[in-house]
Parts: sequence; structure tokens; C-alpha cells
Amino acid sequence: MGKCTTITNYPHILHGADYNPDQWMEHPEIIEEDMRMMKLAGCNVMSIGIFAWATLEPEEGRYDFSFLDFIMDKLNENGIKAILATPSGARPAWMAKKYPEVLRVNEMRQRNLFGARHNHCYTSPVYQQKTAEINRRLAERYKNHPALLMWHISNEYGGECHCPLCQAAFREWLKEKYHNDLDELNYQWWTKFWSHTYTDWEQIESPSPIGEMKLHGLTLDWKRFVTYQTGKFIENEIAPLREITPDVPVTTNFMRFFDGLDYFKLCKLIDVVSWDSYPEWHRSEGCVEAAQTTAIMHDMHRSMKGQPFMLMESTPSLPNWHEINKLKRPGMHILSSIQAVAHGSDTVQYFQWRKSRGSSEKFHGAVVDHCGHENTRVFREVAQLGEILGKLDEVAGTFTPAEAAIIFDWENWWALDSAECLELHNKRYIEAIHRHYAPFWEMSVNVDVIDSETNFSKYKLIIAPMLYMAKPGVEEKIERFVAGGGTFVSTYFSGVVNENDLCYLGGTPCGKLKEVFGIWAEEIDTLYPEENNSVTFNGKEYTAEHFCELIHANEAETLGKYDSDFYKGMSAVTKNTYGKGAAYYIAFCDDGAFTKDFYSRLIKDLKIGRALEADLPYGVTAHVREENGQRFVFVGNYNDEPAELELGDTKYFDVTNGNEIFGMVQLDGYGVKILKAE
Amino acid sequence: MGKCTTITNYPHILHGADYNPDQWMEHPEIIEEDMRMMKLAGCNVMSIGIFAWATLEPEEGRYDFSFLDFIMDKLNENGIKAILATPSGARPAWMAKKYPEVLRVNEMRQRNLFGARHNHCYTSPVYQQKTAEINRRLAERYKNHPALLMWHISNEYGGECHCPLCQAAFREWLKEKYHNDLDELNYQWWTKFWSHTYTDWEQIESPSPIGEMKLHGLTLDWKRFVTYQTGKFIENEIAPLREITPDVPVTTNFMRFFDGLDYFKLCKLIDVVSWDSYPEWHRSEGCVEAAQTTAIMHDMHRSMKGQPFMLMESTPSLPNWHEINKLKRPGMHILSSIQAVAHGSDTVQYFQWRKSRGSSEKFHGAVVDHCGHENTRVFREVAQLGEILGKLDEVAGTFTPAEAAIIFDWENWWALDSAECLELHNKRYIEAIHRHYAPFWEMSVNVDVIDSETNFSKYKLIIAPMLYMAKPGVEEKIERFVAGGGTFVSTYFSGVVNENDLCYLGGTPCGKLKEVFGIWAEEIDTLYPEENNSVTFNGKEYTAEHFCELIHANEAETLGKYDSDFYKGMSAVTKNTYGKGAAYYIAFCDDGAFTKDFYSRLIKDLKIGRALEADLPYGVTAHVREENGQRFVFVGNYNDEPAELELGDTKYFDVTNGNEIFGMVQLDGYGVKILKAE
Amino acid sequence: MGKCTTITNYPHILHGADYNPDQWMEHPEIIEEDMRMMKLAGCNVMSIGIFAWATLEPEEGRYDFSFLDFIMDKLNENGIKAILATPSGARPAWMAKKYPEVLRVNEMRQRNLFGARHNHCYTSPVYQQKTAEINRRLAERYKNHPALLMWHISNEYGGECHCPLCQAAFREWLKEKYHNDLDELNYQWWTKFWSHTYTDWEQIESPSPIGEMKLHGLTLDWKRFVTYQTGKFIENEIAPLREITPDVPVTTNFMRFFDGLDYFKLCKLIDVVSWDSYPEWHRSEGCVEAAQTTAIMHDMHRSMKGQPFMLMESTPSLPNWHEINKLKRPGMHILSSIQAVAHGSDTVQYFQWRKSRGSSEKFHGAVVDHCGHENTRVFREVAQLGEILGKLDEVAGTFTPAEAAIIFDWENWWALDSAECLELHNKRYIEAIHRHYAPFWEMSVNVDVIDSETNFSKYKLIIAPMLYMAKPGVEEKIERFVAGGGTFVSTYFSGVVNENDLCYLGGTPCGKLKEVFGIWAEEIDTLYPEENNSVTFNGKEYTAEHFCELIHANEAETLGKYDSDFYKGMSAVTKNTYGKGAAYYIAFCDDGAFTKDFYSRLIKDLKIGRALEADLPYGVTAHVREENGQRFVFVGNYNDEPAELELGDTKYFDVTNGNEIFGMVQLDGYGVKILKAE
Repeated sequence: MGKCTTITNYPHILHGADYNPDQWMEHPEIIEEDMRMMKLAGCNVMSIGIFAWATLEPEEGRYDFSFLDFIMDKLNENGIKAILATPSGARPAWMAKKYPEVLRVNEMRQRNLFGARHNHCYTSPVYQQKTAEINRRLAERYKNHPALLMWHISNEYGGECHCPLCQAAFREWLKEKYHNDLDELNYQWWTKFWSHTYTDWEQIESPSPIGEMKLHGLTLDWKRFVTYQTGKFIENEIAPLREITPDVPVTTNFMRFFDGLDYFKLCKLIDVVSWDSYPEWHRSEGCVEAAQTTAIMHDMHRSMKGQPFMLMESTPSLPNWHEINKLKRPGMHILSSIQAVAHGSDTVQYFQWRKSRGSSEKFHGAVVDHCGHENTRVFREVAQLGEILGKLDEVAGTFTPAEAAIIFDWENWWALDSAECLELHNKRYIEAIHRHYAPFWEMSVNVDVIDSETNFSKYKLIIAPMLYMAKPGVEEKIERFVAGGGTFVSTYFSGVVNENDLCYLGGTPCGKLKEVFGIWAEEIDTLYPEENNSVTFNGKEYTAEHFCELIHANEAETLGKYDSDFYKGMSAVTKNTYGKGAAYYIAFCDDGAFTKDFYSRLIKDLKIGRALEADLPYGVTAHVREENGQRFVFVGNYNDEPAELELGDTKYFDVTNGNEIFGMVQLDGYGVKILKAE
Repeated sequence: MGKCTTITNYPHILHGADYNPDQWMEHPEIIEEDMRMMKLAGCNVMSIGIFAWATLEPEEGRYDFSFLDFIMDKLNENGIKAILATPSGARPAWMAKKYPEVLRVNEMRQRNLFGARHNHCYTSPVYQQKTAEINRRLAERYKNHPALLMWHISNEYGGECHCPLCQAAFREWLKEKYHNDLDELNYQWWTKFWSHTYTDWEQIESPSPIGEMKLHGLTLDWKRFVTYQTGKFIENEIAPLREITPDVPVTTNFMRFFDGLDYFKLCKLIDVVSWDSYPEWHRSEGCVEAAQTTAIMHDMHRSMKGQPFMLMESTPSLPNWHEINKLKRPGMHILSSIQAVAHGSDTVQYFQWRKSRGSSEKFHGAVVDHCGHENTRVFREVAQLGEILGKLDEVAGTFTPAEAAIIFDWENWWALDSAECLELHNKRYIEAIHRHYAPFWEMSVNVDVIDSETNFSKYKLIIAPMLYMAKPGVEEKIERFVAGGGTFVSTYFSGVVNENDLCYLGGTPCGKLKEVFGIWAEEIDTLYPEENNSVTFNGKEYTAEHFCELIHANEAETLGKYDSDFYKGMSAVTKNTYGKGAAYYIAFCDDGAFTKDFYSRLIKDLKIGRALEADLPYGVTAHVREENGQRFVFVGNYNDEPAELELGDTKYFDVTNGNEIFGMVQLDGYGVKILKAE
Repeated sequence: MGKCTTITNYPHILHGADYNPDQWMEHPEIIEEDMRMMKLAGCNVMSIGIFAWATLEPEEGRYDFSFLDFIMDKLNENGIKAILATPSGARPAWMAKKYPEVLRVNEMRQRNLFGARHNHCYTSPVYQQKTAEINRRLAERYKNHPALLMWHISNEYGGECHCPLCQAAFREWLKEKYHNDLDELNYQWWTKFWSHTYTDWEQIESPSPIGEMKLHGLTLDWKRFVTYQTGKFIENEIAPLREITPDVPVTTNFMRFFDGLDYFKLCKLIDVVSWDSYPEWHRSEGCVEAAQTTAIMHDMHRSMKGQPFMLMESTPSLPNWHEINKLKRPGMHILSSIQAVAHGSDTVQYFQWRKSRGSSEKFHGAVVDHCGHENTRVFREVAQLGEILGKLDEVAGTFTPAEAAIIFDWENWWALDSAECLELHNKRYIEAIHRHYAPFWEMSVNVDVIDSETNFSKYKLIIAPMLYMAKPGVEEKIERFVAGGGTFVSTYFSGVVNENDLCYLGGTPCGKLKEVFGIWAEEIDTLYPEENNSVTFNGKEYTAEHFCELIHANEAETLGKYDSDFYKGMSAVTKNTYGKGAAYYIAFCDDGAFTKDFYSRLIKDLKIGRALEADLPYGVTAHVREENGQRFVFVGNYNDEPAELELGDTKYFDVTNGNEIFGMVQLDGYGVKILKAE
């Protein structure tokens, strides 16, 4: 049962929350209530110590672990595991006052005051030393504590610092990257433009609104450096933990498509990927788009390490920082939590267990509200979910097989977003990812979300929307993948620049890709938002909007053509048979109708496995986890109305009640079924 | 006739303007023209000396009162009184240059340059000393001048300073408030959150975008401190005046719902409340909403001291700083001026008498335009109003009786606006105040607008929309008020936090209020702007939008229920009989239709007195002032079309022409009638 | 043939581009390709050396002209002329590092870091000296080079600096302007307002958001100073060039209605006006508005010196910095290039010859794309245009006659835009210019665009929309013009302030203009955007929107009246016969329908010459150039559909093919015809 060695060696799905008892130490009766209610809610884990530095080290060098000792013991007594955080997410006021260097300098070159969180310089030797020291003490103190399950490194890393220490570190990073050769840097950043040639490394400064914002190579390298430097900081945090508790796994919580950090790089430093999920459910247009967007995130965080991930934060009710903070409707909490498990999460965790009494997150939905008791709708739904999760021990640790993958590449995103062209302030990259992902969700097909540096060999089908940046080796990887029998789909504005945002010469897509796809892209037209064109494909007319590339099919076969404007009749969709595989090129931005039909056909042609072969009603999807012949199918209905689906003759067990299930199945509005194949 | 002791001992309604002859001293013929035209316009008062510091003290320590001597005498010769201003609203350039400390430091911690107005540090000892000195000299010089009617302290106080002197003063204020106990401060600000515990008072800094913005307790205390420190500055200004001219009343001009200062605190420092009114009349949707919004302001400024107030500034024509500066239509000037009197103003004053020739307010509507003569539409209307006001001596000093009150609480507003929840950037508090006020305006009922610290005992009905913050004692005050026979109306999101924005534990509304209202509010749902729900009340369906609280009626009777969504059937309007009184709870945000019907019923049930018992056509309202058996009813028509109303058999005199008036009465578009009961 | 002495002594229309071979020196084969392709494209000129400072002076005092020597020779060998740039548009990194004073200080008083372009202090002695030095060396080195055709001073001057050096220079400029008399400055800036009287020149600082923004006189003078100081910098740049190469003409490239600099002042410093044109063609509403807007710009840049101008930059394809970067449709490149020639340009030049490989302009449309070859749609259209331009030698140097002029005055614009009144953030001045210009374009009438300081005597008709600021002498000029037989059209909000934004006393329009127009403007009403009024003129009803002035016709005849609101029946259009001429006053802002009818009548009445007497279809226009009896008519069709027009019996030659042409003529969509009168 369950292999579970991958994550925490704990043979159950984890159910729990961030827990901040340090806020409640003046109220011991509340701590007691917490223990009672945690068990009532079916919780088996709590993340503790996040932001507790001021409690743990109230003055420099004086450590006080009494609160943590008490809570660790208390949790253990109650059979609850602890994910213990390192406290670096915010620093004590005394530290900021004594060592201003630990505070950030913003891009305007102003040193911040004490306050907020994420307000520390990653380069500061003082901050690194203080962090390593407190982490070491935590590890030493709790290394043998039975409650200790895992390390939670800091919290939601993010942000950047432009202080002199960071400038110096950035220059060292650049010297390393460019082999100590300024000419190479000047060429790659194309500094001859606007007379920006650097003749001394000391002349280089991080991007700034009062300095340089127009050298895209600099901007890109700065973003890379920020990820690198954050990684160095993470390594510094982890070192004492790995040394003292080599068997305790380490995670840090990511945040979906967070612009500031390339998570595909950082995930290599930790043992388990976890992330914080706060979708806008119940927008007036319904929940399907939010469900798909969230599914992409789950798939991406899972694909990072190709193993189960953790849903580290979510809310059982509502967040407090959305523009409109709407209540989760009955059922949605269970549905959205099981969605995470369906996509490979081995946990369902919340921010937070008990609502804060004060400060800026006091209205963030939590398991226990300010009223303090369990007689609330939210608590009841959490407890009901706890019961369901308790029946999923077999699911813990199972794999999430995928034959198709979509490439979302962080550096490509950064480069696209800062590119000055097309629609200047909106390249619609994330929308493109969503548009090319949605058909798989609708067809109940598992998909990996990978970056362009991931190994391609395990997939039948790879889709790379707007792969503007072709990093070194990517051209060859695509060529080998297709030649070897894979199917690759690319779109407009692909293969345009190298890893430093320097344009490829010789036409796009770059180099060999012109042969692989059998096309040449001459120009790209951008339409005003109120305009469109259309493309006829397979006898049907589809909307083309925003971006229409004007391509020439050379070896490729034309599958679709533009219907109007001066490029009427030019190729809009092509297929090129290359080696043992095929390469498709979609030259236009569609509105979702085209991609739906295009991929639904491709899934059938390539015989890509689906969770359910059934025709699913709108808003219903299924995903699969499996291992050792066991196969779990998670079916969810994202409509607020009931839906029916036909399972046919295949028989399943309903995991939550053990009943056999087949034929016509009814799902409640926001209903979910967990099926185990017989 | 007229008691008039309350304000200025001047037995007439004041009619006048800000007058800045210092701008025109190079043109003596213009000063002469001013005197002639003031009399022609029926003006009897001018506010002078505002912003005159550079003229009065052209270099440090050299005072030159010649211009002021001249003008005071000139006014006196022409039978016009002077409201003499202290000049602190702007400082001379030499002072800023010599003592940079008098200039403000902004929240980014940057010292301002000389320029603008309101650009002074309230803490600066230099600025306080300079201000006290010039005020003392003004008082000494003019204490016996026959024109001197009143002191106008500075001008439109506002803004804040973050300089080191202010930081130190803020820390002292905090030590006082928190009994020198950092633990108490840490608990109230809930600083354990994000590791913000302060271990030394010196660690505390005022809120800043480059520092702390997330501790709501800090933000709130800072705002309180700004009001406190401004008050200290005002006291410093007033001290020499009170010492030298103890009988001359003191005012300073307020500005409607000005976010920066709690006027309910500051009004205690002055003798008479005055304010500056610049509504956007004639927006394309008509004038009724502007009329109601302005009425609320008049009522609030009157309620502050429960005595007649002053309309210190308004424009006879148009402002110049609105987004769209539209001309007041014929009639509107008289109507809007008489509106002020109807709500308790004993003055109608303008900014300004004569349009400036240059600088940023040169196009602000004034009595005398750049053309310089009286043959303008604006001048004629001002003169016509002057004639009417001349007939209202009996009105001066009369009271404005009110049996109902609406609570608008500044600190509640600050806390609500910074709260992170619901609709993140719009809590719609001001809209709620308006929605609960409008029905009284439409029914011609006088209303007081008070804060939660005001004495409740004089009212039959008190309404507290969104009283999120229940300050110490408020819970008990409401309980006593209802138990004693009062009717109290509360709404969603009430009784949530204490005075430091710390959530009450045990469920909302806090403490005893759950019993008084007989309900418990479990959750609150926020809808997207394009969504709504509805509530059935008394057999009729009403729109619910933005905020729907999910409440449980315990002892309370349910009067209205939600019609749809998952909380269909839950209580939306409740009534609880408690002691000798009743407490209503409105759980949802309506669109105005519900409140209209709800209050119109309540007014009848509670027999709350109306200015006129008649059914008034849309856009027509009436308000009453009375004293010693005399009763004046002011009727206004805010439509651009004529309107009729039926006075029935009650007979009145029309004050402007002495005619008897009864039965069917016709009002012109933007017409006004001033009736005196027989 | 061709007089051509006015511009460059080069007897052909110039066709070329910015050329930056310094970016490609590592690729000598690309330079060779460039030469081959330039000839293929029919190019005869290249602008070189823009932003080349870091290449020319790689370290302080070490000059390296090898690249420039090579390119100048290369161009010459290939029969291509060089417009040689001075490199001051951006400075080398070493200079910024060594002499921080060369970098700008922004209005927040922060010194910029190195980066961007336009980032230099115009006052810095170091920067002036460095610039003069490199300019001198360029002139010395290439003074006899056969390729040298012209000097291109810096690039797109713009921006301002608030450093202490600039503050001191500003004060000196003010002392000069105000005769060393602070009282005069105080009066003109109306500093008594808000106590701003300056008692020492040192107290004056440039406008700043953290200082003074409300003294419009200061703001205006600062803008004037920025133009002045930029002019001083330009003079410093030009001095060595004029000394060493007195016969080589000098230009610098302007940018349409660029807010930061008064081009009517700067044009006096250079020999030839050039400008950079990047219209948004093909917006979804069609190309006519863009064509008219661009026509105004061409006319303005031509009118500045009353001689042919240069189109210095344009794109053959698309820009990269528009919000939506749409491809030029086939034909548009030729049409828009010939439009420039039609309005008086003797050049068609591009930014740039070859697309950069990296940095922020790498996607800006260029003649040669990243693919590197000539087999592109864009290259083919450029080459086709090159062929046409090669047939226009006779056009080079010809005049563009105009009997009508529209006044666009920079200082008036600055003053209007900062005026606080009307619609606060939109005075709609540029729209007004467009509205009063469009009828002439539609009637194929040549128009000059002048400022209020231009000589009026050569025109039959002068139009001054919103001439808010009447500078000294303008009142008299208008009076003399009309009295002498001219026709002058003015509008609402004219003659309000003097050159320092100080209101005229005595009513508007100021002084004698009340007699010339025979009216007095009492008030001005601003409507909400969703409101309007209407005006009946000549039996037809026209929309009035945004601004409606309430005027009194004294001597003037009323031609149109308002139809509604309280000013129904008041004059809205008047005509006053004055001396031998006539003065029209249009009191309202129309939507384009009124101006169209009004001017079409006036053009006929005044017998103003048209390029073609024909009735032109919508979107088709014609403009004329002529000299020595030769007359060229340029006809353009800005519709994407073909259009027909009737030339009647007049016979022309089609310049591109030598055919005779008359009667009905067909124009392709975006088609153009160049006709030579027989």
C-alpha cells in the first residue's frame, strides 16, 4: 500500500494548515481548543513557525524555543505531524534596526524601512549568517522530535534587492556567465545600440526606471540572477538542515506563474515541490476557466519533479486579497481539494488553521473563524473532506501518467513580456498556454507542464505555444524528438531569439526548425482588439484574433488558410512530416474554438490515453493517478448544476463508500467522484 | 429677535466671500470698485488675510500691517464685517529657505521643496513659534477694530508629515496611549503576525510604502495621531487669540468627508464649525443625488456642535478643479445657498469675491469676474440672493430639530477602508451612508449626522450603517439606547473589530449586540459588481448587491429573506424587540429601493416629525428650523422642471414677499420657497 | 531643373534610412550585402553615426574613426550620400561613470543612473565641452569627404534636467526676462496667491511634484527655459560644424506635437527642418484620420521655414512601440511616403535600414529584416518606391503654396494644458486643430500650420482655434490683418491670458479683439462627455459638445444660435465685418460636421485655390507643389477600396509612366497618382 517514499514517508494524504499558535500564547484555552478541533476536522499535519523569528529570538542571540517545544509536544500528543518552518520570511525589528543591510534597496535605489515581509537582501552576509544560525538551532533542537515530518523553508520567496552588495554579486555572476569577457556581454546585450557599450564591469547596474530598462539582455540576466541569488540563499538555509536531519525532506512553497522567480530552476534545490493555490472560483462566468487554470498549475508543480507535490496553502472559504472575495459555494471546497489530489497532490493544506485576530490577513478564510467554534459551514465542509481524505491512503504516492506535455518556459515568458513589439503590453502568452491546454482538460487527458529544458523523450506529443526564445540545444531537441517519431506543435512567434534575447538571423523559426516545420515566417500582423480575421480548417471557419503570422509553407502541407485581408489564402495551419514524426505549426491566435477541434482530433489520431473514454458534459473532467496496476479516476463537475456521464460497462469502486459504480452516473453540482478501477 | 449668541452676535445671516485685496494693491481703483459692488451684492462680511503671510511679514521679523489696516478700515467704513484669517495655510519663501524643518517630509521620507500650500510640519517648533507670533500680533493689532467679527484659523487643514520630529512625537503619543507598555501595543496591533513584534519604541515608524503598510493598528493610530497633532497645532494657533480677544469666536473651515482628519475630534477645539461646499451640480443624471450628498454634509457639520454652522466657501458659478466644470444653471445658486440655511447654516459665503488674475485658481468662479463689472448673470444672482438673505434675520440662530440620527464615524471609515476583505478596494461605506440617508430627505425629515461617540439619548431612531468598529462603550450605549425604548438600525459587517482594528472573538456582531439584535452573522459573501441576489420583504422583491451577510436569527423575528443562491431562505432583514425598544438588522447591501420603503414605514411607525406632511414630488424636499414657537420651512425643487406640491390647509407666510401661502404651491425649476408657519 | 539650393544641393529626392553599421562590424559580409541591397532598393542616402559615441571614443580622449572612415568610403564608392550625425543622443558609459554631472536629475531631484538615451544635462559644462570636441573632430575629419551631404545634430532632442546647474541657469534666464526685477516676476506669476512672493532669486526652484506645481507662470517659464537651454546646447553642437563646414546644411529631427520643446523656436537654429513620422495607419476606423493628422504635421514642419522639409524617419513596415503594432497594408508604404512629398518633403527616409539584432528596437520595421535577404514584401515595396522617387527630380525643391493658415502655438498649448478649468484634464486643443484642418484636406486645399508669431500678411484666411494666450502684439497683428482685408476665424476660449498666463482684465476676447470680432464672451459652459447641445446655422442643426461659450454679439452679425439649455437663442457663430476684412467667432466645440460645412463655404467665398477643383470621394485628397510654372498634383486614396475621380478636361501627365491623363481616373485602394500639369 502506498510507496510514499517520495515525499514524507507518511502513508496518508496529508490534511492540515498553517498554524500560528505564537499569536495565541496569551490564550492557552485556545490552544487546547485547537487540538480538539484539529482532530474533529480530520487533520493530521500543521505547518508551524512561519514568521516566528521575533518569538524565537526576541533579542539578538537570545533564543527562546519554549513556545515551539510546547507546540511540537502538543501536536505529537495529539497525533499530528509538524511541517516546521524556518523563520526567514520576515525578520525581527531589532535586526532591521541594528543591521540596515538586511533590508532591501528598491529599483529606485532607496533602502526600505522595516516592515512588510519579503523585505530582505538575499546577498547580505549578516542575513545569511543569522538565517543559517537559527536554522541550525531549530534542526539541532527538533532533529529527533517525533512530530517533525518535514522542513518548510521560509515562505513564498520573492522580490529583489538592488543594494551595492547585490550589484557586486550581479557583476560577479555576469563575469562567470560571460567568461570574464565584456565583448561577449556587449555583443549578446547588443549594447552598440544607443551607445551602451560597457568598458568596465563596474559600469553595469541592475535595471532601474532611473537608469536602464531598454537592454533586454540586461533585464533578462538580472531576472536570472535574482533566481540564482534566491537559490543561493535557499541553499544557505538548507545546508544546516541537510547536515543535521538528512532524512527530513525539504520544501518551500511556490506561487503559480510567479513572475519573479524561475521555479523550474529552484525546484532542483528542494526535495518536494509545494505551492499555494487561490483561484477566483465562482466568477460570474462560471468555474470552468478557473478549474482549468488551476489544473495547469497543479500539473506544472507536479511536472517539476515528476512526483507527487503538495498543496501547501489554500483556503477553505475565501481569501481576503482578491479584488472580490466571494465565498466558496457548498461543495466547492471538497471539489477543489480533490482536484489537487487528482492532479498529483498528496496533501490538502490551508492558510490557515485559525483566523488571525489582527493585522492584514485577519479576514483570510480559515478553518476556525473568529467565532471560535466548529458550528460553521466552513468547518463542517473541512471535516467532511477530512473524512474523504482519510480513505485515500492508497492514493498517496501514486503517479500521474502523461503522454502529452505543454511547454511553459519562464525565461521565454520574461523575454516575451519585455519584448517591444506586437501588442506592446500584452503578448497573451499565458492565454495561449491556457488555450492549448483546455482541450486536454475537456477530453480528460493527463498533461505535463514542462519547460524547454525538460527531457522530451517520454512524450508522444509536445506543444510549445509561442516559444519565442529557443535556448541553446532546444532546436536540436525538437528536431530529434520529431525525427524520432514525436509530434510537436508550435505556433506564431516561435524560434525568434536566443537565450539572451538576441534575434536569430536567417529568418524564423530559427535554423533547423524551418526544415522541421517546413515553413518560413515572413511577418507577423497584430490586430486591434476589436478586429479579427478567420481561418478555414477542415471545412470549418475559425476566428483568428490579435496575432496573425504570415508564413510560407515550403515542405509543409497546408491544413488551414486565412480567409481575408491581404494575406487571404496564405497558410495558417501546416503539418510537416519529418523523420518518423510530424511537426504542426499554428500561425494564428485563435479564440479557443480552433484549438479545441484541432487537439481533439490529434488526441484521437495519436491514441493518447484519457482518464475516461466517455463523452464528458461541459464543465466535467477526469484525471487519473495510478501505480502497480491500481488506477484511480477523479471525476469533477465544475458546474453548479448536476451533470450526468456514461461510464459504460467499465466497473469501478467508489472509494468514498466502497460501492460498485458503472453505467450512467450522476454528479451533484460541484460534485466529485473518486473511482478505483476494478 | 434671533438669539444669535451662539455664533457671532451678529443679528443677520452673513453673506460674503473670501476676499484677497492683497493681490490687488497695485490697483487701488479695484479696491474702491470692490466696496461699491459688495454693497450692490448685499454682502455684509468678507474673510480676509488667508494666505497673506508673505505680505504681512515680508522678511523675518519685519511686519507690515499697512495693507490690512487699510482694508479693515475700508470694510468698516462700508459696513462690512471681517472674518480675519491667521496666515498659516502657506508660509513665505524666506521661511522655507531659512528653516527647512517647516516643510513636510512625505511618506517616502523625502523633504518637500518650497511650494504649494499645506506644506508645513505640524510638529516643527519653529513653525509653531512663528505662527503663534504672527497670530499674537494680529490679535493685538485688531482686537478693538470694529470690523473684526471672527477668527478664521488657517485654511482647510490637511496632510501629514513624516519627519524625524513627527516620528518622535508619534512615539510619545503611542507611549501615552499604551501606558508605556510595548506588550500592550504589540497585542493590539497583533504584531506577532509576520514577526513584527517591537522590542523598542524607537523601532516604530509611521506607515510608508517603503516600510510598513500592513499593520492596520499602526495605520489607524497614525491617522489618529495626525488628527491629534493637527489639533495641537490648532490649539497653538488659537491660544494667543483666546488670550487677547476672548469674545471673538474662532472657526476653521472643514471639507466634507475629508479622509485625513477626524473632524468630530477637531470641532471641539473651535467655537463654530464652518465648511467649504463644492458639489457637482447638474451631472447628467440630475441634481437630486448631489442635493442629498450635500444635505448629509450640512447635517454633519451642524450636528458636530448642535448649533448653527457656517457655509464658509461655495461658488456662485463653477469651481475650476472638478473634472468637468459646468456652470450652475439659473436658480441653482439661490437654491443651493438656501439649502445650506435650511440645514442650519447662518451664512452663505464664497470663494471668492473677485477672480484672481493668475495662478492656479484664476478660473474658479467668483462674484466678480475678470471683466470687472456687475453686468453678469452671476453677479445678478448673487445680488438677488443677497436681497433674500436680508429678509432672514429671524432665521439666524434658530435650531434644527432632529429625532433621527445616522452615525458616520471617521475611525470606522478609516478602518473599513484599509480592511483587506470584501471588495478589496471599495467597501462602499459612503454609499451606504447615502442610501440610508436619502429616504429621510425624500420624506422631508430632519436628520442629525453624528459619530459613535455622540450622546444617543435625544433620538428616537439611530441608524448605524456598517458600524464595523465598535469602540469601547459603544456596545453598551446601543444596548442602553434600545433597552430604554430607542429604535436602532444596524447592517451587515457591524461590530467586527475593536478600536484598534482587532477582531472581536465569539462571533459578530460583538458581545451583547448579538442579544440586542437577536442574531449571529456567520459569513459574508461578496458579489461581483455584475451579479446580484434579491430579498423578499413585506411581499416585495428587492435587489441585493455587493455584500450579502449570512445571518442566523436567534431571538429576532425575520422580516425579509434571501431569494436565491445557497443562502436562499436565510434571514436578510430582522427585528428584535429588546427592552422597551427595537433593533433592526439589515444583512444585505441594497440598491436604494429597499431602504426607501423600509424607512418610509419606520418614519410613520415611530411618528418621526417631518418638515411637511405632504407627499412631495420627486426631487423636492423640505427642512425645518425653529425656535421659540417660530417655525421656518425651506422647500426646494432640485428638478430643472417646475413642480407642484399640496400644502393643504396649513397656512404659511412666504418670507421673501410676506404673502400668505397655502393649498397647491408651484415651484419653478430649481425653485425655492421659505415659509414661516403662522 | 530643380533649384534645390534650399536644402542640400542634391538634385534628387532623397531616399534612404538610418544606418547603423557599427552594430554589424563583426559581420563584414553583412556590410557588403547592405551596399548591394541599398542600390537594389533605389536608396541614395544614409544617416550614419547616430548613437555611435561609444564606438568613436571608446575611452576618454581616445578617438577611433576607423569604422566611420570605412563606411563613408564604402557609401561613396556605391554612390550613396551620408547624413552624418553628431553622437550626443547618448553618451558612453565611461563618461557617465567619471562625470555624473552629465546625467540628468529628474523633477523629484534624483540623479539618474547611466542608461537609456536622452539622459544628459543640457547645462553641464562637461557635456557641452565633450560634445563640442567630438563634433569638431568629426567636422575636421570629414569636411572634404565626397559622401558628406549634411549634418544630423544629435537625435530627437527632448527631456529636462533639474540639477543645481540647471536651477542656476534657470534663475539667470529669469533675471534676464524680468529685467532683474523680482517684483515684476511676482506680479506676472501672481505669487501673492498662496503667499508665494519670492524675495530672493535663490528661492526659485523648477516645478516639482514635491515642490511647486501651481504657479502656472513658473511652469510656463520653465518650459520656455527648457527650450532655450536645449537651443543653447544645439548652438554649442553646431558651432564647430558651421566653422569648419560652412556649406554643409544642418538639421535635427523633430517629433510632431512634442510637448517638451517649442519647435517654432528651435527651427530657427538649423538650416533644414526634418521630422520623424510614425502614424497609426489602419486603425480599425480606417486611415483617413491618420492621414489628416499626418498631413497637419507635414504642413507644420514645412511651414516652420517655408521651404521643403525632410521626412527623416518613418517605417516601411511597422513600428514596435505603438500599443498595437500592425503591418502596413500593401500600397500604404508608397502612399504614405508620397504623401510626405506632396506636402513638401524632399526626402523619404526610414528608421532603419537593417533591423537591430538585439535591444529594445530589434522589432522596429526596417528595410532589411532579420532574414537578411530582399525576398520580402517590405523590401519589394521599398524598391518600388525607390523607382518612383527616382522620377521626381523635378519636384525636388519646389514650393508648396498656401493661402490659408491654421495657428498652432506651442506656448498656447502648454498654457491651455496646464490651465485648471473647463474639462480639467482635457482641453481638446489638438482635437480642435484637427477639426478645423480636416475640411481643407477634404477639399484638397493646401494649408500652412504656423504659430502666432509668424508673419500673417501672406494669407487670405487665418484660423486660430482656442487661442487662449494672446502674446504681446498678437492682438494688434490680428487687428491689422482683418482691417487690411484678411479673414480671421477664432473660437471659444480665445484671448484670455497674456504670455505669462495672467488673465486679461476687461473681458474676453482681450482688448481690441472684442471690437474686431464684435462680441463679448461672458461665461463658458463645460458639458459632461455624454451631454450635448446643438447649434442652428444656415438652417441646419449641428452638434455642440464639451465647450459652449456664452457670448454677446455686439457689432457682430449672428450666423448661428444655440438651440437649447438656458442659453438657447444666444449667439454661437458670428461674423463681424471690420475694416476691409471679416472676423468670425465660433463659440462652441462641434463634432466636425459644422466645421466641414462652415469652411467649405468659406473656401468658395474667398476663392481659395484648390489642388483639384473636382469633387473628391471620401478619403481621397490632393495637394500641390509648384515652381516656375510647373505644377505637380499628388492624389492619394486612403481607402482600402478603389476610388474614382473626375479630372474633367484638364490634361496632366502621369509622372510615373509619362502617360497623358484626364477625365475619369481610377485609384487603387491606397493608390496614389502624381500628376504634372501640362
